[in-house]
Amino acid sequence: MKIAVAQLNFHVGNFEGNLNKMLAAVKTAKKQKADIVCFSELATTAYPPRDFVEFDDFVDQAEETVNKLAKAAKGIAIIVGSISRNPVIEGKDLYNSAYFLENGKVKEVRHKALLPTYDIFDEYRYFEPANEFKIVKFKGKKIALTICEDMWNLGNENPLYTVCPMDELMPQKPDLMINVSASPFAYDHAQERIDVLKANVDKYKLPLFYINHSGAQTEVIFDGGSIVMSPDGKVFEELPYFEECVKTYNLEEVEKGGKVSEQPKDKMQLIHDSIILGIKDYFGKLGFKRAIFGLSGGIDSAVTAVLAARALGEDNVRAVLMPSEFSSDHSINDARELAKNLGIQYDIIPIQKAYESFKELLYPHFLGTSFGIAEENIQARTRGVLLMAMSNKFGNILLNTSNKSEAAVGYGTLYGDMCGGLSVIADVYKTDVFALARFINKDGEVIPENTITKPPSAELRPDQKDSDSLPDYAILDEILYQYIEKQQGPKEIIEMGFDEKLVRRILRLVNINEFKRYQTPPILRVSSKAFGMGRRMPIVGKYLS
Amino acid sequence: MKIAVAQLNFHVGNFEGNLNKMLAAVKTAKKQKADIVCFSELATTAYPPRDFVEFDDFVDQAEETVNKLAKAAKGIAIIVGSISRNPVIEGKDLYNSAYFLENGKVKEVRHKALLPTYDIFDEYRYFEPANEFKIVKFKGKKIALTICEDMWNLGNENPLYTVCPMDELMPQKPDLMINVSASPFAYDHAQERIDVLKANVDKYKLPLFYINHSGAQTEVIFDGGSIVMSPDGKVFEELPYFEECVKTYNLEEVEKGGKVSEQPKDKMQLIHDSIILGIKDYFGKLGFKRAIFGLSGGIDSAVTAVLAARALGEDNVRAVLMPSEFSSDHSINDARELAKNLGIQYDIIPIQKAYESFKELLYPHFLGTSFGIAEENIQARTRGVLLMAMSNKFGNILLNTSNKSEAAVGYGTLYGDMCGGLSVIADVYKTDVFALARFINKDGEVIPENTITKPPSAELRPDQKDSDSLPDYAILDEILYQYIEKQQGPKEIIEMGFDEKLVRRILRLVNINEFKRYQTPPILRVSSKAFGMGRRMPIVGKYLS
Repeated sequence: MKIAVAQLNFHVGNFEGNLNKMLAAVKTAKKQKADIVCFSELATTAYPPRDFVEFDDFVDQAEETVNKLAKAAKGIAIIVGSISRNPVIEGKDLYNSAYFLENGKVKEVRHKALLPTYDIFDEYRYFEPANEFKIVKFKGKKIALTICEDMWNLGNENPLYTVCPMDELMPQKPDLMINVSASPFAYDHAQERIDVLKANVDKYKLPLFYINHSGAQTEVIFDGGSIVMSPDGKVFEELPYFEECVKTYNLEEVEKGGKVSEQPKDKMQLIHDSIILGIKDYFGKLGFKRAIFGLSGGIDSAVTAVLAARALGEDNVRAVLMPSEFSSDHSINDARELAKNLGIQYDIIPIQKAYESFKELLYPHFLGTSFGIAEENIQARTRGVLLMAMSNKFGNILLNTSNKSEAAVGYGTLYGDMCGGLSVIADVYKTDVFALARFINKDGEVIPENTITKPPSAELRPDQKDSDSLPDYAILDEILYQYIEKQQGPKEIIEMGFDEKLVRRILRLVNINEFKRYQTPPILRVSSKAFGMGRRMPIVGKYLS
Repeated sequence: MKIAVAQLNFHVGNFEGNLNKMLAAVKTAKKQKADIVCFSELATTAYPPRDFVEFDDFVDQAEETVNKLAKAAKGIAIIVGSISRNPVIEGKDLYNSAYFLENGKVKEVRHKALLPTYDIFDEYRYFEPANEFKIVKFKGKKIALTICEDMWNLGNENPLYTVCPMDELMPQKPDLMINVSASPFAYDHAQERIDVLKANVDKYKLPLFYINHSGAQTEVIFDGGSIVMSPDGKVFEELPYFEECVKTYNLEEVEKGGKVSEQPKDKMQLIHDSIILGIKDYFGKLGFKRAIFGLSGGIDSAVTAVLAARALGEDNVRAVLMPSEFSSDHSINDARELAKNLGIQYDIIPIQKAYESFKELLYPHFLGTSFGIAEENIQARTRGVLLMAMSNKFGNILLNTSNKSEAAVGYGTLYGDMCGGLSVIADVYKTDVFALARFINKDGEVIPENTITKPPSAELRPDQKDSDSLPDYAILDEILYQYIEKQQGPKEIIEMGFDEKLVRRILRLVNINEFKRYQTPPILRVSSKAFGMGRRMPIVGKYLS
């Protein structure tokens, strides 16, 4: 039997577009002589459809899409993820399902049992878990058909569920496992995924076809990397990351095994490529072409500029240099040099006049006070107004250039440098932004060396340095990583050897700045715990604050 | 037996404060000769603690709080909601529990079985559902002790669960029901709550003590209104809304029934009171005292000003009038008159100079273009910069004055009039903002009559009216209500008799403006479906857009 894995980039709610992609893939799979072609989880709606599924009209359209796709299931069977209605009144109204289409019709429907409800996932918000487990028969083979999380109760330290769908299916003696999935990218997730799948294969001794989604939906990036695994637990083939592909495998060869083909997993390469896909899909799926951003001469906007130019093309990005009285000469030069290296349009708009007019307007009210945060923020917000004006006038979407370290401790100005439609690197810690800059320059200088080597500064007052108010980034980032990604509390982090006062100060900064992060643009998620929908913290809380 | 209902205002993560409130209430209950005192759901941590519960340290502190409270359970028993750890490795790590404290110790722990995971609720994100059901024995009585949602599978059209905890408990022949709850406010929710509780009492024929939380946690407001219900299904007493109280009931009298005492449920009174509590708790729990806002002469900022002054005191609010060349004379006069009526400080800062300097800075770039959205937004954003500067300088928190109708269709400027730490009326449709203004004026003019009767305008270009770009608010709001609160799709709304083109245009406006709402401040929730954590929509989606 020949099985085609179709790893595609769907678009939330774009039923027609998603259907057309699948119809084209069915044709390709037929050419490849596949007996069956498999699409990913919720392929009709794309993942995650979020509260759209609460609309009857949306569910109707998903059902129609499955029915239209079923008509193409002639001479080939199709497995596709979509939503289905729960006919029972008690329980949630919907299932997250895998449809088996054959002879132009829906032949079988199986439901997801393990519903991820953590981090970015909200599945129990919408779906009833499956309470029965049945294999699917096709051409003399018995298929154990499961959906994503259904296989994730094995191979990890903290199983979140009391049921293992594969354990329920094994008494029916399946010949192979097919898992349709929408497993999001994080720079360390591809390896975890392989480990979990291997734990399943090691236990059940069956070949596995694992079909992932590839593409970004606002902040969530899916990396593809679909996997075919032989019963010996070896990766027969791992499909490319961040790309669409349709590839057919001979089941007998996969069963035989003896072949190993994995993708390289370099952290900086993965972050680089994922962000480029994230930008590309944000613009492409919203129907936008052009971006704009402030270029300060600093490393954050430099890295953002390179990634944007690579995602959208140098003709579609525009930089604005907005020097003030506190900007150093080298900042302008570094920014200009980068713009020239990239071949992108740039404009220089000094902010002094607008800043002065604000000071003048506020003079009678600010009388007797001294220069402080208010004045610093006016500069940052003046830049925000200018960038948004350019964005509104010319239709370029503003990219936000904040990094994760500053987003964490609130070292940024709301409505100032925190503006933007999409936040490009706010899930990348400052130390990794430096690493990413080095990665970008690995084949020749793109980002001016001075931008990488000079001490980071917001340049909002004379001779300001980040290090005036923040600890060394190497230390800051490690503490943040332990708190945010690893969810370690103050006691555990202090026990690792960090200074107690510093740890408490940083954790407090993170917690009291929840109000700022609440209003940031969506942040492209590249780590296992990004700010945004996957991290839900109270604002009015009194904890470590 | 005498049972005390303690309806208190807790604070998320403030273990010490919450404990002290409970210890004081235990004393009061003892004075009232209560045999048992009952606190609400997750009383130790306050509700909702959100991702704080993912920190071991946080769970430890909750456990310590229960243990400290247990020491006070001498001569009186205590029921208190808190988190507890799941000792089994499989499944989620925590339970949402009700502790029964007696003789200075934890005597029993019961877990919540039905975990609300919809709208603002995320409980399955954290908690394992209970899988066993046991009554609690105390002084010869058998108590069916449940937690909030556990009673909500009855009395509504769409039961979300396949289990009814009370059905599981009934074979153990309980004498009464105690339900500890954290049921949030919506202007139509108190009646639904009574209906659901009555469905339970009608079925199980037992007296019911239902203890709710009173107080606001950022955007979510809990209204109290705890309920004691007799077995005849009558509300023996409904406690006040938006207040703390400790009140003791004689079980025998409640069993006998024959008394009915409910709170009035006037929509405008409820919205008015809930928002005042929302503002008060946002400031009080964050340790802030003073607010600032822009006062335009329009109805939205007028209503916001009144509510803020009533919540924080007139000495703690400050208005800024920021006229432009497009402001009408009456706007300034109306704004000034309101400020005087309220007795609040106000400043006038004309924005012209800053606006001109932005136009000057942008002149070479905007050359050849004509006045449009970019120029309108510069004005709104200039006001945003001025308000935030005043906020930063003087420590007054900026209140956002947007209404729900404009938030829905994106009729507002990001980083301009959409700025603020808290959005006061963005869950109130424009037609209800008018009704609220009338309600405020019911005992004499507070808001100038002209502010209420003049046609709404953003005043960002000459002779602009909201009606230039939006349909009549009566029609707009009804369509929005059907789409947002009632989750009706285009087909259903058109079938109600609304113009098809208009319906499609409005639904499209709502969907394409998701990106703006993503960056709005938290919005005080007064309806069953507010923008914010309870409504989770894709930004990069292609549905009705």
